[in-house]
Amino acid sequence: MKPYRLNQLELNTALQKKAREMNQDKMHLKHLVSAPNRLSNYSAKGGGLFLDYSRQRLDDQTMQLLIDAADKLNLTAKFQQMSQGALINKTENRAVLHTATRSFSSTPIYVDGHDIMPDMQNVRNAVKTFCNRVHNGEIKGCTGKAFRHAVVVGIGGSYLGAEFISTALAAYANKAIRIHYLANVDIHNFGAVADAIDPETTLWIIISKSYTTAETTANKNQAIELMKDKGLEPSKHIVTVTSKGSPGDDPGDPVLATFYMYDFIGGRYSVTSAVGAAPLSIYLGNETFERFLKGAEQMDLHAAQAPAHANLPLIAALISVWNTDYLGYRHNAIIPYCSALQKLAPHIQQLNMESNGKGADIQGQMLDTPAGTVIFGEPGANAQHSFFQLAHQGQAFPIDFIGVLNPQYTQYQSCSKGVTNHQELWANMIAQAKVLAIGKDSEDKTRYFSGNRPSSTLVLDDLSPENVGRLLSFYEARTVFEGFAWGVNSFDQFGVELGKIAAADLRRQMADKNQDPDHYFEASDPIAKMYLEMLFEGKI
Amino acid sequence: MKPYRLNQLELNTALQKKAREMNQDKMHLKHLVSAPNRLSNYSAKGGGLFLDYSRQRLDDQTMQLLIDAADKLNLTAKFQQMSQGALINKTENRAVLHTATRSFSSTPIYVDGHDIMPDMQNVRNAVKTFCNRVHNGEIKGCTGKAFRHAVVVGIGGSYLGAEFISTALAAYANKAIRIHYLANVDIHNFGAVADAIDPETTLWIIISKSYTTAETTANKNQAIELMKDKGLEPSKHIVTVTSKGSPGDDPGDPVLATFYMYDFIGGRYSVTSAVGAAPLSIYLGNETFERFLKGAEQMDLHAAQAPAHANLPLIAALISVWNTDYLGYRHNAIIPYCSALQKLAPHIQQLNMESNGKGADIQGQMLDTPAGTVIFGEPGANAQHSFFQLAHQGQAFPIDFIGVLNPQYTQYQSCSKGVTNHQELWANMIAQAKVLAIGKDSEDKTRYFSGNRPSSTLVLDDLSPENVGRLLSFYEARTVFEGFAWGVNSFDQFGVELGKIAAADLRRQMADKNQDPDHYFEASDPIAKMYLEMLFEGKI
Repeated sequence: MKPYRLNQLELNTALQKKAREMNQDKMHLKHLVSAPNRLSNYSAKGGGLFLDYSRQRLDDQTMQLLIDAADKLNLTAKFQQMSQGALINKTENRAVLHTATRSFSSTPIYVDGHDIMPDMQNVRNAVKTFCNRVHNGEIKGCTGKAFRHAVVVGIGGSYLGAEFISTALAAYANKAIRIHYLANVDIHNFGAVADAIDPETTLWIIISKSYTTAETTANKNQAIELMKDKGLEPSKHIVTVTSKGSPGDDPGDPVLATFYMYDFIGGRYSVTSAVGAAPLSIYLGNETFERFLKGAEQMDLHAAQAPAHANLPLIAALISVWNTDYLGYRHNAIIPYCSALQKLAPHIQQLNMESNGKGADIQGQMLDTPAGTVIFGEPGANAQHSFFQLAHQGQAFPIDFIGVLNPQYTQYQSCSKGVTNHQELWANMIAQAKVLAIGKDSEDKTRYFSGNRPSSTLVLDDLSPENVGRLLSFYEARTVFEGFAWGVNSFDQFGVELGKIAAADLRRQMADKNQDPDHYFEASDPIAKMYLEMLFEGKI
Repeated sequence: MKPYRLNQLELNTALQKKAREMNQDKMHLKHLVSAPNRLSNYSAKGGGLFLDYSRQRLDDQTMQLLIDAADKLNLTAKFQQMSQGALINKTENRAVLHTATRSFSSTPIYVDGHDIMPDMQNVRNAVKTFCNRVHNGEIKGCTGKAFRHAVVVGIGGSYLGAEFISTALAAYANKAIRIHYLANVDIHNFGAVADAIDPETTLWIIISKSYTTAETTANKNQAIELMKDKGLEPSKHIVTVTSKGSPGDDPGDPVLATFYMYDFIGGRYSVTSAVGAAPLSIYLGNETFERFLKGAEQMDLHAAQAPAHANLPLIAALISVWNTDYLGYRHNAIIPYCSALQKLAPHIQQLNMESNGKGADIQGQMLDTPAGTVIFGEPGANAQHSFFQLAHQGQAFPIDFIGVLNPQYTQYQSCSKGVTNHQELWANMIAQAKVLAIGKDSEDKTRYFSGNRPSSTLVLDDLSPENVGRLLSFYEARTVFEGFAWGVNSFDQFGVELGKIAAADLRRQMADKNQDPDHYFEASDPIAKMYLEMLFEGKI
């Protein structure tokens, strides 16, 4: 069989050898970064972003091996096939077409002989029309009041992307409508949202592909109860984002509008589909949302077309696999020096860990070491005052620094110590990447910095909708390229199924007890039994 | 020299042997958890909380070895010495007395011959008096309007704890006053806060021990500019929380009130000191804040007094060290099945990683492997729909599940599939811990679950202020015990210093350029030079 994973290639041995070599003193980052033209040789501009990987533990040979691997595995061709509708989600026999949701091209894309591009366009138009009618007051709540709150009811992929983008672009928001997220089935989440809204002026956006997600159904039912309690008509306060023909698309149970989801767009890749379009167009306005799509499209085209050595998400993916499989790092921090990007890390945590955290490859072969890496992060400079002590002197992990050149709030120019706040922020970001790489010797070992701690830096001109779209697409494409290199299916998630089955069993036992207070819990699992009893008892 | 680290003890060899044994099939968690009385033997109640560690990869011998290690290292005695004022922060020659901030005991605690308990009481009284006067309208802004917004200006330890507690206890908040956090020097953070407040009714709480923290100073200066722009008198809108005699405690620069910080309370342990007392008493009311303190005090006493085998934070610490040093796990997730605890993980991330992420031990000896572990987490059930795919089928990591038996919003009792939302939440939590441990075989390897993935479960009766105090103290004590076992100083943070020095150098270059647009940046570090140029150019 033709190799389909990086570690099946002949050059795998050379990469392993290279990794051992990288542990030699002469290969310490403090030496690597001082080579002439290090930055220009280890950075690239493309798709509207700038990526500096000069502080990654790489030399020319390593880069060449990784680029060769990308060529031999046809990674760019695979990305193109994905974008053109190939059924690359093999375990579910589906195409993977999140890129189509933001394509403004007129080229058809066929799935099972059907051109899906008109469907994509129809969804965009339907959302646009609906949002414009909400914004101009044509569509109102059942008591005739304009909508002032939008509650997004959805979990995982039906939540994290919209939260990330709405936080990043809050400065562009239509101030008339506040947005709230109801993801967790924890009644605390519902209670807090219920306290913050006015039901008469609230639009509920229920997002679930199957419309049977347990958490979303439970929250939707609470919302309906609340509306009924207040004498409101739920059908005049709900829109659904779901699959055609799901229980959320039932003419017998009418709602204000239904926007369709398609099985070729996975939840974690869905923020540019109706899943993000509905809440974000309501909150930000459709024009801002389309600018965001256009940025994502630009990076998609870069990912599909740029040669490997100049392809930002591909380079980032190769480095990630190198760091994980060869250098042995187990996690990757994402540190945007930008408060508005505070929800980037939680979104990418889902996108990347759910896509690539796999034990078997796409052919169903167990991997010797599972693929994927743990992603976590908080904004800088905050993180410096939180967990960066460990980043400098504890176990090392690669970091993605993200900088934004021009601040959104340009009116605050007063200086402390001769610099603006924005400059202070940048001084810190530049400094961190530098000293993590270089380190510092010291006789006093509590003040010794080993250095050699890798990072990349990604730079955006500003936090425009287009740049946020580019950033999203960069991380999506990086995740996809990593999955291709690891040889896993980045689009299924069978690992979440077992817990759902076990929860259903426990739910049944709770429901029985709710019906019959004398019901005894099954003793087959004594630990679960104790927790069921403790929950119904209500004390530890 | 007497052993002062777990891995210096003779029983270290036995633990290493045990760890190898745990990799045998017969020691898989699916077998361990089915032993009779597994739960009762591997759980404990104390300090008001319940800890279940039955799904940790431990057997009786391992537990005995760990308890023996705790005895030989005198961990409980060390905790008592800490609470009584011993100078255990050796590198800085300081006592460590966060426990004193919530002690309601009349026993004196001497530091350098001075009883510090009256100081603790004075701070509590001063905050209480001030907050009551704000709440009853005696203290108002300079235009005579009552305060409606409190902005907490502080970073790291002067921010994360208050954010965690104010989010956890938001249901108790005084609805008249909204709280905002201004931590990041990113002007976006300031801009967003400035947009959300009304300066006339805003109280700024500036928190910095030295009152020279670069980020906090820059933000404070922006706040003062804003007030001056609006014609307001800053001295009537500011309180400071700082060290006696710092620039924030300057009679020449008066403010509404100053509450003192002490050098024997580290930032990350300071939320029960004035650092948390000021914002939380304003936001939650002083009565709620004191209930929170009393819960913390109860767990402190448990940590200091309970025998090792029944001491919750000590057991949790021993398991953490076992998982990290012997079983080789590199991170620990914190998954509260409780939306209100959404800021627990970011707080513990700082508390634990900054405390124990160390390369050298307390005697200045380099460690073979750095101490500490990466902490991350999001609330469940959300996390199940985010990164739990990797938790089930990717690389394994230990998880702390946290459950709350009684929900805060008891009015929402309607059922979906026969259960309330709160029960659905619990069904999921119980299910996750179970299937992670047990796994499931499958011919189809994409649906194969290896299991043997460890977790603990911590249970709270409800989300009362007392229980949130107990939870905080549990994690603080666990962190301290871990540090004792690793033999590191959990109270210094020299690892953050190098970055500050490098940032100061870059700041100077930026300030020079601000003064003189023709200024050329130093070429000694070409990478930093490029970023300086890019920032001033304003485009990639």
